[in-house]
Amino acid sequence: MTPSSPFLPIKCGRVEEINTQEENLTKPMPNLHIMDPKLLQSMVYDALVWSSLHGLVVGDRNIQRSGKVPGVGMVHAPFALLPMSFPESHWRQACELAPIFNELVDRVSLDGEFLQDSLSRTKKVDAFTSRLLDIHSMMLQNNKNEEIRLGLHRSDYMLDEQTKLLLQIELNTVSSSFPGLSCLVSELHRSLLNQFKEQLGLDSGRIPGNASLSQFAEALAKAWKEYNNPRAVVMIVVQTEERNMYDQHWLSTVLKERYDVSTIRKTLAEIDEQGVLLPDGTLLVGDHAIGVIYFRAGYTPNDYPSESEWRARYLMEQSSAIKCPSISYHLAGTKKIQQELAKPNVLERFLDNKDDIAKLRKCFAGLWSLDDSSIVKDAIERPEFYVMKPQREGGGNNIYGDDMRKALLRLQEEGTEENAAYILMQRIFPTIAPSLLMRDGICHKNHAISELGIYSAYLRNKENVIMNEHCGYLMRTKVSSSNEGGVAAGFAVLDSVYLT
Amino acid sequence: MTPSSPFLPIKCGRVEEINTQEENLTKPMPNLHIMDPKLLQSMVYDALVWSSLHGLVVGDRNIQRSGKVPGVGMVHAPFALLPMSFPESHWRQACELAPIFNELVDRVSLDGEFLQDSLSRTKKVDAFTSRLLDIHSMMLQNNKNEEIRLGLHRSDYMLDEQTKLLLQIELNTVSSSFPGLSCLVSELHRSLLNQFKEQLGLDSGRIPGNASLSQFAEALAKAWKEYNNPRAVVMIVVQTEERNMYDQHWLSTVLKERYDVSTIRKTLAEIDEQGVLLPDGTLLVGDHAIGVIYFRAGYTPNDYPSESEWRARYLMEQSSAIKCPSISYHLAGTKKIQQELAKPNVLERFLDNKDDIAKLRKCFAGLWSLDDSSIVKDAIERPEFYVMKPQREGGGNNIYGDDMRKALLRLQEEGTEENAAYILMQRIFPTIAPSLLMRDGICHKNHAISELGIYSAYLRNKENVIMNEHCGYLMRTKVSSSNEGGVAAGFAVLDSVYLT
Repeated sequence: MTPSSPFLPIKCGRVEEINTQEENLTKPMPNLHIMDPKLLQSMVYDALVWSSLHGLVVGDRNIQRSGKVPGVGMVHAPFALLPMSFPESHWRQACELAPIFNELVDRVSLDGEFLQDSLSRTKKVDAFTSRLLDIHSMMLQNNKNEEIRLGLHRSDYMLDEQTKLLLQIELNTVSSSFPGLSCLVSELHRSLLNQFKEQLGLDSGRIPGNASLSQFAEALAKAWKEYNNPRAVVMIVVQTEERNMYDQHWLSTVLKERYDVSTIRKTLAEIDEQGVLLPDGTLLVGDHAIGVIYFRAGYTPNDYPSESEWRARYLMEQSSAIKCPSISYHLAGTKKIQQELAKPNVLERFLDNKDDIAKLRKCFAGLWSLDDSSIVKDAIERPEFYVMKPQREGGGNNIYGDDMRKALLRLQEEGTEENAAYILMQRIFPTIAPSLLMRDGICHKNHAISELGIYSAYLRNKENVIMNEHCGYLMRTKVSSSNEGGVAAGFAVLDSVYLT
Repeated sequence: MTPSSPFLPIKCGRVEEINTQEENLTKPMPNLHIMDPKLLQSMVYDALVWSSLHGLVVGDRNIQRSGKVPGVGMVHAPFALLPMSFPESHWRQACELAPIFNELVDRVSLDGEFLQDSLSRTKKVDAFTSRLLDIHSMMLQNNKNEEIRLGLHRSDYMLDEQTKLLLQIELNTVSSSFPGLSCLVSELHRSLLNQFKEQLGLDSGRIPGNASLSQFAEALAKAWKEYNNPRAVVMIVVQTEERNMYDQHWLSTVLKERYDVSTIRKTLAEIDEQGVLLPDGTLLVGDHAIGVIYFRAGYTPNDYPSESEWRARYLMEQSSAIKCPSISYHLAGTKKIQQELAKPNVLERFLDNKDDIAKLRKCFAGLWSLDDSSIVKDAIERPEFYVMKPQREGGGNNIYGDDMRKALLRLQEEGTEENAAYILMQRIFPTIAPSLLMRDGICHKNHAISELGIYSAYLRNKENVIMNEHCGYLMRTKVSSSNEGGVAAGFAVLDSVYLT
């Protein structure tokens, strides 16, 4: 195995230092909506070609088989034509937070009582969280310890325009998407900035190196090595249809090419059907011993249509395979836990270093439970400053504005336990910027907002922390609909960062 | 520019020596139709993934925009799942022939009289060849010399099973397709042979390195350099719809990444509309001076629906741009010229080296004009041993069997000049082998025949030959329909070579 695989665009393999010496030579990002039409046309064409040749692709939702069979019904992944400006100081801040959040998730995951207590009221009103907690309880009862723990997280932030504060939106501890494609987008943007250097006057060195793919693969490979069975494989838990399969295939490809580690792909139903637990804890699926379980499904109730899927989840959790994530890591990433950790003196329960605690707290947006009647009152009066988030995973379920006001009033009236299914969060107002968003081969001029995701990897065994670092990033740029005052609506695209 | 681009699978960049020491360890190609179904399924899946991530793609004919807009409606290129066995001695023979054919084409192209005379009767019955000859005549009249001459050819061969002779099917001097994708197929096959080494027992080192892409790009870049205008571009002449655009985009990408040479893509109609010839012979198209014209269109009458396209062809031919091919090179690759060159003592007119002449002659199949009444008589009596080929370019126009017999009888009766629109060629019977052909994500078990194409590049200026070499190869494997006794019917896929 060569350390530098031929199958990766060369820059994907390393995180680069930013060259700040050329700062004076660098023009700011131009207004993308007043670009010369001929230049725009050339850039669009070249970007589409680049995507097609370099595997920056997804399954086309208009084509039936595209989520099942690789190689058919492919279309370029939606992407921003140029990277999004982002202040270097905030970028560095986000990277620095990554290992601290990794450590926090690990500590929280070890405190079974904290997880159960914090989620006890949510359990009553959210069937999905309830099932996860049941599995968690059984593991506690059986004294099941996860000695080797692997986390592949993505912490998402927005930059609040008024306060200039970097505020955390959420921390994904399960199934963080786009580690494979995000570094391709960075590479695409570097390529375009070089190709059109004269016309754009932008410095491709201001796009930070993005090693999400190679470092996620490295973390999975190192975890596999810790499992210490050369015949074992990495199992990717997948949905029955997955149009984002190429993002996952990139990881499998690098795992195989660079580390000679094989992967298999199984749905929860297939794991239930084919999975067997040996007395020593080994999980067999089909003919394969499973060393590492990497979840790219199982984070939403939709992935558990029957008891079969829950049996599979329970079976995996009982096994000696390294779970990414374990049920504890999964629960530690829920919104309710995010809100609990934001309460005074809770971080101190898990972390010792005061600087670290201060850094985390600085990025916490206002987070409240619906038990806090003064906040609920304020949210009803000034709904524009809040967002109501259901515990349930997956975007697009947030409640804003008048809908939120009505929902809060209804919950007040009914006085039920349903309160516990939601949290309230401070509304963040990021900068709205003119953007060029590519979808289905068409360039859309939109006003858009961006969310910065920082990938991080954490791996430890009984004795040592083996990996604890930020790995790369994903900018997600979303069409901003004016009637929601900056809230994401419409479609989102993959983007990268241009440091300013 | 780095010599080894990050955008190429690493092996695509060089022609490798075959390691013959491991010969004893190598198993022959197994019967692909009796492969373990589970193994087959894994290989199919991995091959489809590999294609998608590495740009081995084409536009899907079922999707309207896929021939116009890059990045939409993509599907894996059709390919054989495993390489086709081919004897190493014949492989080497084909490679050795490449520079000799290059030289021959160049010499023939300089003999305007030979081209005009040989094609004089064809001119009367084939309107397309006639128009090409008209342009050629005008160039002769104007003493237009092409001092810098670039040829990017592909010579196609079949291996006759009974005689074990490598016989040339045709020599493509214009628009040879798949230099970009063919080396990806070789890389895919190497990857599969490595991945499934234990199960298949095949040695990936027996798949020869395939540098068609990088060497075609090198030849174009060197020609561009000879033109000696740093602001000039390479113009690819394209069809209005092109589902094989990614094959061409690979060349543009390597040209830009490795040599910093820009390409533009224009249809013949666009060239007519936007093209201007400056007094010094410079061809301007839009804002661009054209250094090299690379034809990926213009080889079939369909590409000239109106006078506009012919004006474009004439305009280009008058210019100082390096044409790949010039009108002379184009004519030198016609079937009629192939047949003329096969006549006794004709090769001697162009080449001095007796060994070279013998090597060429050895690969000539029987080729006859329809003036040869004894051959026509034999073909009517034993049609299974002949194929009738129209002068017209593009596959699928050949006439076999009873159809041929009837056509020959009709031509005899009518006694017209139409004779001259065809040649007769010895029917070649290649080995029929069980094959696994991938199309639209589905693996087809077929009996198939293969045709080996050897890419070659030739470049010279007034003083020196700058490049004259074989560059790589393309195996094309086609479904063999039994009712035609070994003749290609149905679909063809891209394939590579496994040396035995």
